[in-house]
Parts: sequence; structure tokens; C-alpha cells
Amino acid sequence: MSSSNYYDVTTWPVGNASKDVGEVINSIIADIKERQAASDVNDGGKPGAVIYLPPGDYHLRTQVVIDISFLRIEGSGHGFTSSSIRFNVPEDEWPGLHELWPGGSRILVDLPVREGGEEARGAAFYIERTGSPRISSVEFSNFCIDGLHFTADGSGLHPENTYVNGKTGIYVANANDSFRVNGMGFVYLENALTIYHADALSIHDNFIAECGSCIELRGWGQASKVTDNLIGAGFKGHSIYAENHGGLLITANNVFPRGASSVHLSGVTRSSVTNNRLHSFYPGMVVLDANSSENLVATNHFLRDHEPWTPFLGIGNGLDDLTGLLRVSGSHNSLVANHFSEVVDAESIRPEGAAPVIIRLVEGAGNFVSNNHTVALDVRAASSDSCFAAQVDALLTTEASDALAVTAVMVDPASARNTILDSGTDAQVVADRAVNAFRATPTVGS
Amino acid sequence: MSSSNYYDVTTWPVGNASKDVGEVINSIIADIKERQAASDVNDGGKPGAVIYLPPGDYHLRTQVVIDISFLRIEGSGHGFTSSSIRFNVPEDEWPGLHELWPGGSRILVDLPVREGGEEARGAAFYIERTGSPRISSVEFSNFCIDGLHFTADGSGLHPENTYVNGKTGIYVANANDSFRVNGMGFVYLENALTIYHADALSIHDNFIAECGSCIELRGWGQASKVTDNLIGAGFKGHSIYAENHGGLLITANNVFPRGASSVHLSGVTRSSVTNNRLHSFYPGMVVLDANSSENLVATNHFLRDHEPWTPFLGIGNGLDDLTGLLRVSGSHNSLVANHFSEVVDAESIRPEGAAPVIIRLVEGAGNFVSNNHTVALDVRAASSDSCFAAQVDALLTTEASDALAVTAVMVDPASARNTILDSGTDAQVVADRAVNAFRATPTVGS
Amino acid sequence: MSSSNYYDVTTWPVGNASKDVGEVINSIIADIKERQAASDVNDGGKPGAVIYLPPGDYHLRTQVVIDISFLRIEGSGHGFTSSSIRFNVPEDEWPGLHELWPGGSRILVDLPVREGGEEARGAAFYIERTGSPRISSVEFSNFCIDGLHFTADGSGLHPENTYVNGKTGIYVANANDSFRVNGMGFVYLENALTIYHADALSIHDNFIAECGSCIELRGWGQASKVTDNLIGAGFKGHSIYAENHGGLLITANNVFPRGASSVHLSGVTRSSVTNNRLHSFYPGMVVLDANSSENLVATNHFLRDHEPWTPFLGIGNGLDDLTGLLRVSGSHNSLVANHFSEVVDAESIRPEGAAPVIIRLVEGAGNFVSNNHTVALDVRAASSDSCFAAQVDALLTTEASDALAVTAVMVDPASARNTILDSGTDAQVVADRAVNAFRATPTVGS
Repeated sequence: MSSSNYYDVTTWPVGNASKDVGEVINSIIADIKERQAASDVNDGGKPGAVIYLPPGDYHLRTQVVIDISFLRIEGSGHGFTSSSIRFNVPEDEWPGLHELWPGGSRILVDLPVREGGEEARGAAFYIERTGSPRISSVEFSNFCIDGLHFTADGSGLHPENTYVNGKTGIYVANANDSFRVNGMGFVYLENALTIYHADALSIHDNFIAECGSCIELRGWGQASKVTDNLIGAGFKGHSIYAENHGGLLITANNVFPRGASSVHLSGVTRSSVTNNRLHSFYPGMVVLDANSSENLVATNHFLRDHEPWTPFLGIGNGLDDLTGLLRVSGSHNSLVANHFSEVVDAESIRPEGAAPVIIRLVEGAGNFVSNNHTVALDVRAASSDSCFAAQVDALLTTEASDALAVTAVMVDPASARNTILDSGTDAQVVADRAVNAFRATPTVGS
Repeated sequence: MSSSNYYDVTTWPVGNASKDVGEVINSIIADIKERQAASDVNDGGKPGAVIYLPPGDYHLRTQVVIDISFLRIEGSGHGFTSSSIRFNVPEDEWPGLHELWPGGSRILVDLPVREGGEEARGAAFYIERTGSPRISSVEFSNFCIDGLHFTADGSGLHPENTYVNGKTGIYVANANDSFRVNGMGFVYLENALTIYHADALSIHDNFIAECGSCIELRGWGQASKVTDNLIGAGFKGHSIYAENHGGLLITANNVFPRGASSVHLSGVTRSSVTNNRLHSFYPGMVVLDANSSENLVATNHFLRDHEPWTPFLGIGNGLDDLTGLLRVSGSHNSLVANHFSEVVDAESIRPEGAAPVIIRLVEGAGNFVSNNHTVALDVRAASSDSCFAAQVDALLTTEASDALAVTAVMVDPASARNTILDSGTDAQVVADRAVNAFRATPTVGS
Repeated sequence: MSSSNYYDVTTWPVGNASKDVGEVINSIIADIKERQAASDVNDGGKPGAVIYLPPGDYHLRTQVVIDISFLRIEGSGHGFTSSSIRFNVPEDEWPGLHELWPGGSRILVDLPVREGGEEARGAAFYIERTGSPRISSVEFSNFCIDGLHFTADGSGLHPENTYVNGKTGIYVANANDSFRVNGMGFVYLENALTIYHADALSIHDNFIAECGSCIELRGWGQASKVTDNLIGAGFKGHSIYAENHGGLLITANNVFPRGASSVHLSGVTRSSVTNNRLHSFYPGMVVLDANSSENLVATNHFLRDHEPWTPFLGIGNGLDDLTGLLRVSGSHNSLVANHFSEVVDAESIRPEGAAPVIIRLVEGAGNFVSNNHTVALDVRAASSDSCFAAQVDALLTTEASDALAVTAVMVDPASARNTILDSGTDAQVVADRAVNAFRATPTVGS
């Protein structure tokens, strides 16, 4: 490429991309800034640049700091492979493995583990700019950010299973506009994406798995989309989290275990969670709290079943089965046409003997709960040392199971004036009919 | 790149890409045609080419004319930033801004403003080919088309706020097949995309904002998709418009204000508008007219609230609140499981004192309106000089608001034999029960 | 590109990409393996590589065999054009055509036609690796795989209309993880994509048409997505097929005729078919069989009408109109908020005089069928020699049609304890009310 706005990290004269791609990229950014310093007159802009990472291993020992708009960092391979499975293979079998690590255009995050609370310091890519306008159109595309290892956290878990290492893939500290994250792979980071104050952000078609938390949209923001991703956080973290966002569209994602939640919205309004496939090993899959209101949660497929993989047996998110798979503190939400499969071993239910809750309205008013369908099966939990086989087996198991009694909808006294239609039989809905409108799903002969 | 079918505009010997990228691209296209003229024998095809635009500013002073299939024009950055916000910053503050213009791989459309009616002449990229087969697989990917300025239109608006400049990003004049527009940015064009007679078109994952109209699918067409875009037109224009299309799939878009409509379908049949997040400052958000029939409008989130940004206060689309947020002239459509938030200042409603209409069936028969949920709040309109802050504030405001009386569904006498279920209480639905089937959303005690 | 992990097929010293790109790519893969053989120690990985195909015609006479992870094969153009239309143009008109063949970065599959049953031998790209870990992150992006010709099959059809040639685009024989197929074009292959044992596979934004079968997910698998594709198989084949998958998300696809089915799931559980636009010329559009259970089929648009194009008149998939457009053998599925348009010539219905079935529950229990809307019109079938014009005409024809009596839901005796709500009038639903819960769609006055 001859253009001076096209950079290849492997040919840049400063630093060594294999040893510290952070130093290389920071040097490139300095060059971009120097070259475009005087150019922003009349119609002449500051067009930014693209930085290319060919497939290869790039250690990152210096944090990349981005404070210019229109920067695209691009690789040629999202490079995901399961580090979790590998680290849970006995070490004496490693020499027989085809490969040990993720690949593609791969950043190996070799930052020192951060001090407590200083999350931003642990980020491979740190974006911060104050003043006006907001930083715009920074793009990450088609490369891999690998945190390499998790670390012991005192829990007794194998260190590589803790989801803790103080490393973040991409951290955006300030208000930003029209950012894009596409085709990326994230693995073995405590936080994959932490983005404050997003406007018109697009997180699309990424592979974000085996990270403590995957996507956190913090502070506040609007008009963004999280679409068509494969996502799965660790047992302590968020797969998709947003706070104080309006007009957020979360759709067409396939969210797999084991996040503490699949989608957690806090103070989020007028947003959509539609058309996702959601799978969890714990209750509290989709949580709308802190007065999250006027949202649409529709045509999602919820599956809650059991952890089938030996290394994580006994791990949970601490929530009991009265929590609800979909839990709402807020008003005027529409919860429509979702499918819920609750496939659990009745003996594992907590509190013991309880009927698990599917949809729970905790606080608020005026929610519309309509045409949701719950399937609940009592299935003996089984597990396996093989992650993939165990998961597929569990997913496909529907035979020899008995129906399980559930509360399809539970409305707490602090939530009122809701409308609940065709989302459970009369016996399956716990709600004060004097303050909530209710129509039971018809049964034979009713 | 060594292949002779790979072109970089910055290294092409004819013309100067910075000064007139149009001349450069036309010269490249002539070269492609010359080289492949004699090659289409036996299995040897005319494979086309890719033309690469590295990040940079490229003035376009000559219209690009495309009449070959399999041409891909590709950049490395969609480069959106808000020109609208910038132009509404006082000019004496511009020197303090980080940057003034969009960026990335950026085409600066410097065509003369077109004469009245000659829209095609104002297009940066003009595609036309007659004969057989239809022109196929032209692709636009990951660059920015910037119209630079709007112009005074006699309305008294600040010239940069008129959405008028006679410029079009991409104009396709003839029947075409399997075109793709992906990852592009469009800004400050009167029309971003105008495409006639599309078959199997894909408009996916683009950022199309601050344009008069964003997507117009004209003439007729079929089997296309408009998916996963961030879109927002000007107050006079269309965000997504289609006429006489069948089998169109409009899904997973986040459509923000201030388009005169969010989705407007005219004579469109057997198509889907599903799973979009739609936000408007005016009534008439989704319009199905001219006998648009057998369409599915489902699981969309509609938000209609007020313009919060000072420069556009008082602007509207001329429609009153009886128009409906979703307005249908046509038959046999399915309008199911949508969420509507109408959040307006009761004093602003026109006609004064009217109950705003949410879904209005104007003409036709046999529509199925089911399980739609309307929230209506009376909120004092507020505004701000800061576009982003104003919008986020408005989006998140749900406190201290009163319920607002609305007509959830209004069926005009010219529309009959519709079925209206669970989409409003008895009092909220205005429809002749003698000719329309109706079941009210249950209320407490009903 | 200077990186040694970036390869361009046109500059590789072994072989000749135009004459046999298979030989070239296999030689590149051998080079990658040799170079990374000793590198997988400590944190150093085997990052794989990217192989670039510039636009051009590349004959493939040697099958590509892939057994390494993190390989990305990438072009610059999906290159689809309709070979079907071209081959059905009289041969003496070919000299007047602008082009005869697909284009872009185009693989011409010149493998010998396979022997009976040896499907894998006919694959352009064959992926196989046993042992651990599973092969991961192989990516195919933005090029065209063209099977060139179909062949006579003894049916009397024009050889180019048979959809038979023993050629497969991509064949994955073993368990695999995190594969991606994006932006590709597939045309005139008997099988476009055949993938066994997929985990977290993404098939996104491709153009897969005029192939015998488009997507077949075989064996078993989990947590994959088929999203935002344009797809249309041949009359004997599958557009989207999966067996024994769990957690599969099929969404936002525009599936056009003439596949024998649009979506066929066999033994698939806890998966989603949502938000697709589906069009077929035959019954049996979406088939859930072999105890496919706990799936969500929601907000899809189904259109079944007639073949309008002369060369395929009289062709069918052998199923009669009692089959159902959506046919379910399985339990606990949710079939919600779908739109069905059945637009057929009453005289063509088989068995003669029958009422076509829209949703049919054949075996199983506990399915939830709610808020589906059926439109049925009796339209005189018309046809044309022009494929595009015929299809658009047919799609837009809603005038001058009479209502057609249908069975909106038929429940066979082997399926019980289902719940059927608002999906047909009392007269339109054939189900034993003693074993199935039922609420009729209200009618005027009911």
C-alpha cells in the first residue's frame, strides 16, 4: 500500500510489533497526528488512518492510547479458540494438541496486572479525549485480543478458571460517536469491551467469549446497537450490560453461558432486546433494574439449564430460582412472545421445593406481559469432562423428562397495574388480580 | 497488491485522487473494460475489479459512472462525524474543535449543485446499464461519502440545516442484481442512496445520517434486505423508503430522528418490517400506503417524542397527531407485538386537545392488529443547545410524567374486516365493531 | 504486504492461480504449516494466515485441503450473477449479453464430477482434522465459488436446470469451532456449504443462490448462527437445513425460492427461527421433524405462491397442500406472531378441492401456537419468460383475487396438549378440542 494513511505494524520503523505492538501503534498514532496537524482547514479534514495487523502474534506491553477520530485498526483473523478447554486439559496432554493458543491477527495482552480499582490501566486499547467534538468513528475490525491467562483469586478455583486478570480489551473513557467493533475476537480478558457514553455505537458480528465480562456500556448513551454477536461471559460477569442508555437495540445475538446474566439493563429506557438466543446455567438471565422502562423484550429464546462441564460444577451466580429468568424493576415494558425453557433437576432448585419463577415483576407499573410460552422440564443433571460433547448432549436432551411446576409470572406487590395475557395458566401466575389485569392462557376445556 | 484487478486510487497514473477522485475512478473503470473486453469466452469471465481508497480526503469533481458488474469500491473507514453539530457550533469556537470534518476514506462531493429535477446529475456514483443481463454485484464498502454543505433554501433556516444541496451519494438508474452496500458512511447528502429496480440488494451495517433522505428503493423490486443499519434522515426526507417492492426485509435497524418518516412503504407487498428500533420527533413514523398489503410489522420499538435540540425547534413534518405513528392504507397486513412510546407535551398536540393516534388503519381490509402495547406520557418538552446531552436526557426522562390519553387503534370507515386484538382497551380503540373483529386488552376486573 | 503470514495467490511461486488455484492454496498451506511447526511454545502461537484472492478467475482443479486453524481465505468480491437466467436465454442471444459468468474473486470449480455417494470428493474446499483441539476460526470471506454448470440427470430437464453436478463449495468433515463464512457468493453448486459438528459457527451476510442445497449443518452442533443471508436453493434441495443442533439462531435471512424447503430442522432443539422472510413455490416451507422441540418460530413472513418462470413450470417438491407451510413433529415449540400468505390458484391445489393447511402439528405435545395471521388468496397463476419481471409481477399481484378457504391450523391425533390461540377462526382450526387448548381468533360479532 502506498498511501501514507495506511500503516502495517510489521513494517513500521519504530519498535518491534512482535515484542510490543503497543509501542508500534502509539508511534504510528503520533505520526498520524503530526502529519494531519495543520490540515483541517476549509474542506480539508483529518482523515485518520488504518493500521493493519497481518496474522501473527503481537505482544502488547505498552497500552495503546487513542485520542484521534477516524482510526481503524484492522486484522485478518478473529482467531478465537477455546483457551478454557485447553487449560482444563491435563498438562501432560498438551504436547499432543494441535495448537495451544488463539491465533489470527492476535494481540497478546502482556500488561502488568492492574492495581485494585484502576481498571483503565489494564486496557490494551485505551481511548480518551475530552473537548469537542466527541471522538468519532474509531473502528476495530477482525483481529484477536487475548488476555492469555486468568489468575488465582483465592477462591480455590484453578487459576485459569477464575475469569480474573485485570485486563481489558478496549476501554473507552469518554463520550464517543459512531464507533464500530466488527468481526473481532476477544478471549481470556477480565473485561472485553468497556465503553462509556456511547452514541450510535455498533458492536456487530464479533466473537466475545471466555471473558469475565463481554460488553459493558457504562455511564449513559443512546441509539447504539449490539447485534449478531456470539457472546459468553464468565460466571461472575456480564455478557451484555448497559446502564442509562436509551434507544439501544440488542438483537440477533447468540449469548451462551456462563455469564452471571445474559443481558443486564440498569436504568435503560426505550430500548429493545429482541430476537436473541439466550442460554444460561443460572437464574437472572435478563435483568431490567433501576427503573428500566418502556423497553421491548420480544421473541427471545431463553434456555436455562445446568452446567454440564466438570471444571465448573457447583459454580453459580448466587441467585435462587425465585429470581426469575426475566426480572423487571421498571415500568411500561413490553415482554412479548418470548420462549422460555427451564430444564433443571428438581432436586437442585433453591429454595428447596420451590416452583422456579420465569418472569418476575419486582417494582414498577404498567408492564405488558403477553404471549410468552414456558416449558419446564425436570431432567437429571449430567456432566462430562468434555466441554463440547457435554453441552451438545445437554442441549439435545429432551427425552425421559417430566414436567416441572413453575411460576410463569410472579408480580410482587411493589409492581402494579400490569397486564398479563396468555403467559401462563391461572395456577402458574402469582399476581394480585385486583391491581393487575390478567388473562390466563387457556387450558383444555377452559 | 500485484494483481492487475486491484487498483489503488492513490497510485493510478491518470488524474489526481485528492483533487478529483471521480476522474481517477472513471479512468480505472475504462482500464478494466479494456482489459476484459475479449475475455468472456468459454468459462472465462469478466471478473471486474476492486478499487481501493485508503483513508484520506478525495475531492470528487467528476461523477463516477459505473456500467460494469463485479466492481467493488472499498475504503478503510466509514468516517462519520456529526457535521450537523459542528455547523451549529458558533463559528468563533471552530478553532478550538479537534476536527471539523468527517474522515476515514472520504469522498468530498464537489459536484455543482444540480438543476431542478435532474437528480441523477448530482450523484457522486451513477450506475446505469441497459440490456442483458442486469448489472450485478457492484459493491460499496467501508468508505465515506460527504456532501460537505447544505444550502439556503429560502426557508429561513440556517443554510447548513436545510438538508438541501442536490447531491446524491449513490444513484442506480436501472434494474440491478445482488448489489451490496456495507459498512459505508453517508453524511450531508440530500439523498444518500437512490436505487431503482433492485433485486436481491443488501444494504447492511451502514451509517447513514444527516442526509435529506437515506435509503430510497424506487420503481419496483424484490427480495432485498435493509438490515442492521444506523440511519437518520432530515426532517423533510425518508430514512427508509420503498415503492412497489415485494419480499423486502427491513430488520435490525436503529432509525433515529429526524426523518419525516422512519419507514415509508408505498405499494409494497409481502414484506417485513420487524425488529427495528424506531425513533421520531413527529407522527407518521411507519407509513404503509398505496395499497401496501400482506406485510408483517412486528416487534418494532416505536418512540415518538419531541425535538430536544435548539436549532431544530419548531420544525415538523406537517402531520398532526391524528395521523398515527403506524399508518396503514392496505390490506391483510399483520401488525403484531410492537411497542409504542408516545412521550409528548400535551399542550403541543395538534389538533389541540386531541387524543393522539398510535395505529391508524385508513383504507383496506383484513389487517390483523394484535398484541401491540402503547405507553403514552405527558412530559413537558425541554430542549438544549447540546445535541447529544439533550437527546440522552430526553430519552431517559420517564419521571414525573402523567399518563396521556391516546387512541391506540383508529379504524377509518374505508378500512374494514380487520381484526384488532389486545392492542388497546375498549375506550382506546375507535373502530366500528360491526365490521371489525375486536377484543379489548383486558383491564383490572374485566 | 510484507508480512510472511499474508499470501496472495497471484504472486505465490508454486503453481498458477488462474489454472489451478487449488494447487496454489495447498502449497501455501504447506508453507504455513512448515513455518509455524516449532512455534507453539509458551505464549507463542500458531497464528495461521490470510490467503488473498484478488478479483479474477481462478480455476480449481485440485481440491483445497485445510487442516490448520486460523486460516482466512479472503477475496474482494462475492461476484454473484444469475447463471440460471443466462443459461435459459437462447444460445444465439449470448453474444449480445454484457457478460456470461459470475465474477469478483471467483473460484471456478473444475473438479471431476464425483462418484455416487462420495460427496466430500466434490468439494472445492475440504476441511478435516481429528484430534484435539477442534479446528478453529477458519474464515471464508468475500469471494465467489462457482460450480459452472449443472448436468443432465435423466429427468428431461435442461441440463443446466437440474441443480445436479456433484460439486460442493465448502465441506467441513469434523468437529469445528468458531468458523466464519461472511460476504461470500455461491452459485451453481449442488451443495454450497456442508458442515458437520459445528460449534459457534457464524454464516452471515452471504449470497447463496442457484445451488442445489445452500446450507446443511449435519451431524450435530450447537450455539451457531445463520443470519442476514440471501439464500435460495434448487427445487430438490435445502435452503437452510440443520440436524441435531441446539441453540441455533436462524434470523434475518431473506430466503427465496425454489428450495424444496426454506428451513428444515431435524432433531433440532432450543433453537430460534425468527424474523426471516421466507418465500417458496411449494408447501413444506418450514419443517420441524424428528422430535424437534422447544424451538421458537416467530415473526417470520411466509409467502407461498406459484412458480412464475417458464423453465421451471410444472416442477414441484412432491408435497401436497395438506402438508402445511409450517409443519411440526416435536414438542413444546412456540409458533408465534408469524404472517402467512398463501397465494395460489385454487385449481392447482392438491388433493383437488382441499383446503390448504398453513400450520400442521403432526406429532408431539405441548406446542404453543399463538397470534399467527394467515392470508389466503385465489389468484390465477401467470408465468413469463423473464425471471425477474415474472417474480416481481407475482409478488406485487394482490388485485382481483378472491379469498381462499384454508385450514389455518391442523392438529393430528398424534400431537396433543397443544395450545392454539388467535391463529384462526373456529372454522379454520382442525384440532381435537378435548385434548388441545383452543381460542379462536375473534370474528365480527363473536
